[in-house]
Order: sequence, then C-alpha cells, then structure tokens
Amino acid sequence: MKFKHLIAILALTTSTSIALGQTAELVDNFDLIPPEIVEQAILLREHALQDNLPVDIVESVTTEVGPRRMGTEGDKRVIAWAQAKFKELGFDRVWTEPVELDRGWTRGEARAEILEPFPHDIVMTALGYSVGTNGDLVAEIVEFPTYDDLLAVPEGDSLKGKIAFVSYSMADYVPPEDGSGRGSYGEGTRARSTGRVEAAKRGAEALVIRSVGIDNNRNGHTGSGNEYQEDVRKIPTAAVSAPDAILMQNMLRRGKPVMLKMNLTSEITGPQMSANIIGEITGREDPDQFVVLGAHVDSWDEGTGALDDGAGIGSMMATAAMIGQMEQRPRRSIRVILFSGEEIGFYGVYAYMKRHADNIHSHLLGAEVDTGGGRANTLSSGVGPNSLELVREMHKLVAPLDIEFNDANTSNAQSDMSELSKAGMPALHLLQNSNGYFKYHHTPNDTFDKIIPEDMRYLTAAYVALFYVAAEMDVDFRE
Amino acid sequence: MKFKHLIAILALTTSTSIALGQTAELVDNFDLIPPEIVEQAILLREHALQDNLPVDIVESVTTEVGPRRMGTEGDKRVIAWAQAKFKELGFDRVWTEPVELDRGWTRGEARAEILEPFPHDIVMTALGYSVGTNGDLVAEIVEFPTYDDLLAVPEGDSLKGKIAFVSYSMADYVPPEDGSGRGSYGEGTRARSTGRVEAAKRGAEALVIRSVGIDNNRNGHTGSGNEYQEDVRKIPTAAVSAPDAILMQNMLRRGKPVMLKMNLTSEITGPQMSANIIGEITGREDPDQFVVLGAHVDSWDEGTGALDDGAGIGSMMATAAMIGQMEQRPRRSIRVILFSGEEIGFYGVYAYMKRHADNIHSHLLGAEVDTGGGRANTLSSGVGPNSLELVREMHKLVAPLDIEFNDANTSNAQSDMSELSKAGMPALHLLQNSNGYFKYHHTPNDTFDKIIPEDMRYLTAAYVALFYVAAEMDVDFRE
Repeated sequence: MKFKHLIAILALTTSTSIALGQTAELVDNFDLIPPEIVEQAILLREHALQDNLPVDIVESVTTEVGPRRMGTEGDKRVIAWAQAKFKELGFDRVWTEPVELDRGWTRGEARAEILEPFPHDIVMTALGYSVGTNGDLVAEIVEFPTYDDLLAVPEGDSLKGKIAFVSYSMADYVPPEDGSGRGSYGEGTRARSTGRVEAAKRGAEALVIRSVGIDNNRNGHTGSGNEYQEDVRKIPTAAVSAPDAILMQNMLRRGKPVMLKMNLTSEITGPQMSANIIGEITGREDPDQFVVLGAHVDSWDEGTGALDDGAGIGSMMATAAMIGQMEQRPRRSIRVILFSGEEIGFYGVYAYMKRHADNIHSHLLGAEVDTGGGRANTLSSGVGPNSLELVREMHKLVAPLDIEFNDANTSNAQSDMSELSKAGMPALHLLQNSNGYFKYHHTPNDTFDKIIPEDMRYLTAAYVALFYVAAEMDVDFRE
Repeated sequence: MKFKHLIAILALTTSTSIALGQTAELVDNFDLIPPEIVEQAILLREHALQDNLPVDIVESVTTEVGPRRMGTEGDKRVIAWAQAKFKELGFDRVWTEPVELDRGWTRGEARAEILEPFPHDIVMTALGYSVGTNGDLVAEIVEFPTYDDLLAVPEGDSLKGKIAFVSYSMADYVPPEDGSGRGSYGEGTRARSTGRVEAAKRGAEALVIRSVGIDNNRNGHTGSGNEYQEDVRKIPTAAVSAPDAILMQNMLRRGKPVMLKMNLTSEITGPQMSANIIGEITGREDPDQFVVLGAHVDSWDEGTGALDDGAGIGSMMATAAMIGQMEQRPRRSIRVILFSGEEIGFYGVYAYMKRHADNIHSHLLGAEVDTGGGRANTLSSGVGPNSLELVREMHKLVAPLDIEFNDANTSNAQSDMSELSKAGMPALHLLQNSNGYFKYHHTPNDTFDKIIPEDMRYLTAAYVALFYVAAEMDVDFRE
C-alpha cells in the first residue's frame, strides 16, 4: 500500500462508510481501472469524508481576506493569501499569471428612500459597474413584472423622467434540490445584464430590479451587468432587496405615484492589474499533461464570498492537496487554477487561455466548482466517445456518495472552465445541491457560517476520487 | 340566528373545517356556555379562518406607516393611521390617550470595521438609547463567551482601553416550536439590558454583543437597554450580526489582537409626546365592563414591525372588528388597546394604568399578542378559581384549531398586558409557534413578507371565539 498515512487515519476512525476489508470486493467490479488505483481512490475518498481541510480553507479565505472583488485591495490580499496557502498545502509549484482589468469600479454607497406616498428607507445595492446618480435622483417608479414587459415599451421617450422597476421574482420559482431550477436565475439576470441599456433607450432615468435570488432577506443581491453602449445614455442600475420590492409593489397597488429617491456614488475607474493564482502537484511521469481543477478567486464585495466561490477554492485546493499527501505523485500534473475576475466577465480564464493557447490540448480533463459547498448529486461528462466507458467506471467510485450518473456526455465544465471546455478540454461536472446558494450569493449574507462542513467534505470526496484516477491513468479523455 | 352576514359567507365556502350542520352536535358538549353563544362563537371562528382582515391590517400598517419607534415621525403617523383604521373597521368609539416619553433617542448611523489583523467591514446596529461614540472609537476587543464571564471580571480598570464583546449565541439553542425556548432569549438580553453599566464599571470603552436572535443573517438585532447610571461613565453599546460575531471569534482564535473601529452617531434627546390608541366596540348591556385586547403600536426602527408587533395589531383589531360585524353588540365592551412605547419600557401601559387606576377592576379579561403571527398551540389562563371551569369550556371552542389547554391557571397576559394582570386583571394567554419571530424581530428583516397569512387567520380565529364568549357572558372572571 502506497498510501500509508491515510490508512493510518482510517484505522483510527469508526465512521468511515466503507471498512477497509470491503475494498477488495469492490475492486472486482472494475475492468478499466487497475485494482491498485481503485483501492487508492477509495481510500482517498474515505479520507476526504473525514478531513475538514476544504472547510478550513474557506474559513481562512473568508476570515483572512474577506471580500475580494477584482481590482480592489481584497483582490491584492487574496493573491498573496492563495500563494501562501498553496505552499502551506505542499503544492510543488505555485505561481501567478497577470490578468489585466480594462476598467475598475468603485462601489461607493447606495442609499434610497420612498418619498411618497409613504416615506420608507429602501435597501438597495448598486449592480456591478453601474454609474452613480450624481447626487440625488428623484423620480416616479414604473413597474414591469418581467423584463419582456419593459422591452415591449417603445424606444424613445416612453419612460422619460421615470425609474424603471422590474419586479420579476426568482423566489416565486423555488429551484429543485438538483439545481435544475437555474433557468429562472437566468430569467432574473436578463434585466441585470442588458437592462441598463434597454431602459435607457426608452428614456428611463434609472433601472431598479428586484434582487435576483430566492431569499426574503433585507439585503440586495448585486451582480454584473453588460457594458454600457457608448451611444446610449448611461443610467444608474441597482437592485432592491426582496422585502423592499414587495413593499414598493404594495404601494403601487394603491394607485398613487410612488416617488423614489436614490443616491449611488458608484464610479467606473481606470484599468487595474490582477492575477490568476495556480498551484501544481507535478506529475511523476507525464508532468506536461494536466488535469485541472478550477474555482474563481474573486468575489462580490458585500459578503466574504464563502459560497461564491470560497467553496470552490476550498474544495479544489483540498482535492489536489489530499492527492499530494500520497506517498508518490500521480502520473500527471494536477493544476488548481484560481481564476481572477469571474464575476465581472471571465477576465481570468480569457487571460489563461491566451497565455496557454499553445498547450490547451495538454489539459486532459477539467472541472470547476462555482455553486457553493453543497453535496454533489449527479456526475456528467463531456469527453471523447472512447473515454465514456472509463468515466462510467469512475462513477462507481462516487456512487456510494449518492451521486448518479448522467451519461449524455454533453457537459461542459462549469463557469470559467466552460471556456476551456469549448476550446476542446474534456470535462467532468458534478451538479450540486444548492444549499441556499441562491439565497446568499452576491449578498452581504454570503459568509462562512453558511458553509455546511459535512456537505463540503462529501463534495470534496467525490472530486478527490475522480481526479486521482484521471491523474493516475494513462488515458486521453479527448478520444 | 343573529349572525346573518357570517352565515351567508359560510354558505358560500366549502373549505370551512366544520360544516354548519355540525354545530348542533357540538352545542351539546357545553354546560356553562349557552347554546346560542356556542353557535355564534363557532361561526365567528370559522369565519375568521376565511377572513384575511388581520393580514390586511399588517400590510396596511407596514406599508402606510412602516417603522414607528416611540417619539419618531413614524410614531406620529401610526397614531393617525390607527385612529383611521379603527373607524374604518366600525369601532363605536376611537380615542387616544397621551403618553409622555421622558427622553427621546436618535439612532443615527452605526459603522464599524475590523482594522487588524484582517480588515473587514462589520454590520453593527446601535442598541436602543445608546450614546454615540463621539467620532471614531478604536480599541482592541476582549471576548466574553457569556455575560457572566464579563461580570466575573473585577470592577475598576480591568477593561480599560478595551471594547467588551459578549459573544453569547442564542442560535446555539434553537427554541422549540412551542415557544418554551425563550429562556435563552432572556439570557441573551441580560447583556443588552445592564451590560452598558457593568462593562463601564470595569473600564470598557464600549460594549458590543452578538445579536440576540436565532438567525444567521447579516443584520444586527437592536433592542432596549436599561438606563445608564448617572455615576457610571456612559459607554456606547451595539450589536453585531451573527455572521460578524462569528468572524470576530474566528479572528480572535488566531491569538492576535483584534482592533475594532466603531462610529455610532446615536444621541439621547429630550422628552417627546406619544399616545395609546384605543378602539371600542361598546357593549349593549354592560358597556362599562371591558374585555381588553392588547398589542403595542411602536416598533423598532430598522424594519417595518410586521412581526413585532404588526401581527398583534392585526390580530387584535381584526378580532374585535369581526365581533363588531355581528348583528348586535356583545353584552360587554371590547377594547383594543394599542400601547405606545412597549419596546423601550412599557411607557404606554403605565400611562394607561395611571389614567384608569379607578376602574382597572372593570377590565374583566385581557390578552395581548406580542410574539408574531404564528398559530396558537396552547391556551393558558390566570382567572379566579370559579372561572376556570368556564375557561376549560371556552377551550373546547378552540381545540379544533389544534390548541391544547394548560390548566395551571397561573398565566399573566403577555407583554404590556402583563402589567394589568399583575394589577388584578384576569388573563388568557395563547402561546404561539414562533414562525421565525426570533430570526427577524428587532432587525431590518422584520417586514410584511414574513407574515404567513393562514397562520395569522388561525391565530385570529382563536381569539375571536374566546373573546366573543368573554364579552357575551355575564361572568366575573376574577372570581
């Protein structure tokens, strides 16, 4: 046995779901994966169920760094933090790659109140890269139940002197536990993305949306919007909390004009430098072949980015670190890539792909975690047809974690890594239970206490088993 | 049948839990309450299960008034709102009684950040009647897991130059659904009440507590504190949100000094005038005998006071209004008393008792709702020994609402009304399911969307049946 350290740990625990004696039986169920690799993968998986490392990493980044929007002081801090953490965890190579941000943004403050018919303070947050209001903006709000209702209004002066208010509620559609409810998140983000341009084309003074989320907390959900168009007036855009949106709707139902005062001091600023941070466990036989694990290092700036994407940072760093604790390095290199600037437009992955354009083909399998720390429930893949049988066998290693297999074999990796998928990188994807992700992400409420430690250990256990096998076996997943 | 309007409504509905034909059977189960009164009580109860009036009242006060801390503009608005609402609901007499507030308070702003070892913004809210910091206050925090740990420190200079931080977590003790977990709320509020004096006696520059609540939202829970002592330095007191408290604890665990900067612009101001607002359904035979239903009209000032105590206002106003819709007035008068200044020290009920000192004995039965809009689960009483049998029979009227009876007969009425109880007023009390009350009350999150309409209808249905009987029967509950 090569994995002495872990065996020692397992011998001491009683709560492992599979006792050591059982692994021999399991090995017989595998045709493509050699017995020793199966056994090591099972030991790694069982170890990960006991190891709080992924949670500890989230605690570290949320406590020692906190908010880390690209281009901010927190971003600088996390670049230093990540390099130190990779080294502490025993990665063989740790480096950064510069990422340029063409435009910075200062959030400033967002204050709002209803003046009439009933005075109320309103909780509002600026959407990413919104311009400010340049002092108090006071105007009547006009409600649009959906973004399509706003788009149906003729361009020109239709909304002149008004604040457009898209009250679409993602909360009225509760995402199923399997994550398949993301469609309604997509509907919610339409207004967030292009609404700043479309509302302006119709003459609006500002765009306010109900926060895109499923919670009823008094926090706005921020998020990115598309760039303004140079030929269209740049109007401020913001999100109100769900309770404030409901309050505004209740006022509007009374048929009297609802006057909103808003004051955003947001400001678009000049270029900034940031970086992707990469840690590598260097392969013993094929060090120039990579299996890659991604997460994004940036976060929105009102919470501490625990779910989005501290959970990705924690699970991916821990996955590679646990494989790195084995007696010998795996055949191939494992890279953990912490991408800069995901939240504001995939800056990090584009820089990575530009820099590594010559050897994207050496990225033989990739995955990313960017939906919080919930347990995985379904494995899917996007690999070459000859590799699907191996993935099916790899699935057997995680099936005891209550993970099903979707064999459509059409999946991209998630988030940043989806861009590498589109460029030909084979991918695995673990669909996760949402664990409140859409309640908390992009809000001040995205904090460490929202992490459920056991769930993060389960998530990491799945990745460690899958990517150990991928790094150890001499298989080209593109075929 | 005297209750034609309601019968008409019942005839149109199919979802009533008891069909009209069944009431005859039920009547046979009652010895002390005459059949006609039983029948009317059942009809009222069934009507209330269908009538959204209590919820509509909460919507109205939260939307049209919002925050209404005693002495503020919102307080003035709610006094006008309540009088108009009582009239709209058909109360026979509506009046106000002045209540003097000896000292006002301006909340101002609360800003806080950790400067070292890791910079973080901190969500903080001033506790009621805290003094301000008079500019930035920067000091090292010293954690006390419980208030007793703080009290164990010697008086004098022990905490000189420090900010005392009581990290006691009510959240670690989840209150059972029956509300019996309130003890831990009491433990949490000890530091809130006297901590400003005790920490100052030990030399502290300020007192910061973990919010007293069971949520993990990024909102502080405010609440009242005792008055400062004239001979002890007046120090600022504030609560941080649960996630911020956890963050501070995680920093402290690293063993380095944690430096907090806080800036509160709170200010204690001069006397203010407010009022109790009273609506009466005047009795047809004994108009000078009263059954009284209480709630408090004031709220904390960061939410809209939906649960605390909009739910009390809504359920109590609706209870009397429904009885007032009957063909004839009940024998006795029903008073709904909306007390001023409960949150900051029972100002309203003390003024009421002073003004009505001569006829407290005419208040023959009372109750108050001040734990949100959840369903009632247990009826208890504090009546004369001869009346207990009648209360037991009254309980049969609400037993179909899944309400049990606790026959210890030692209950006071809740909140403000407890003072009238102590002065001899017989009381009923309905213990309620908490429905998130301790997640939301005293926070910006106490908003209308937290009300569960069906639960409020159930709650009101219980009160309407019980207090119709109390108002109709010629019984002295003191005996």
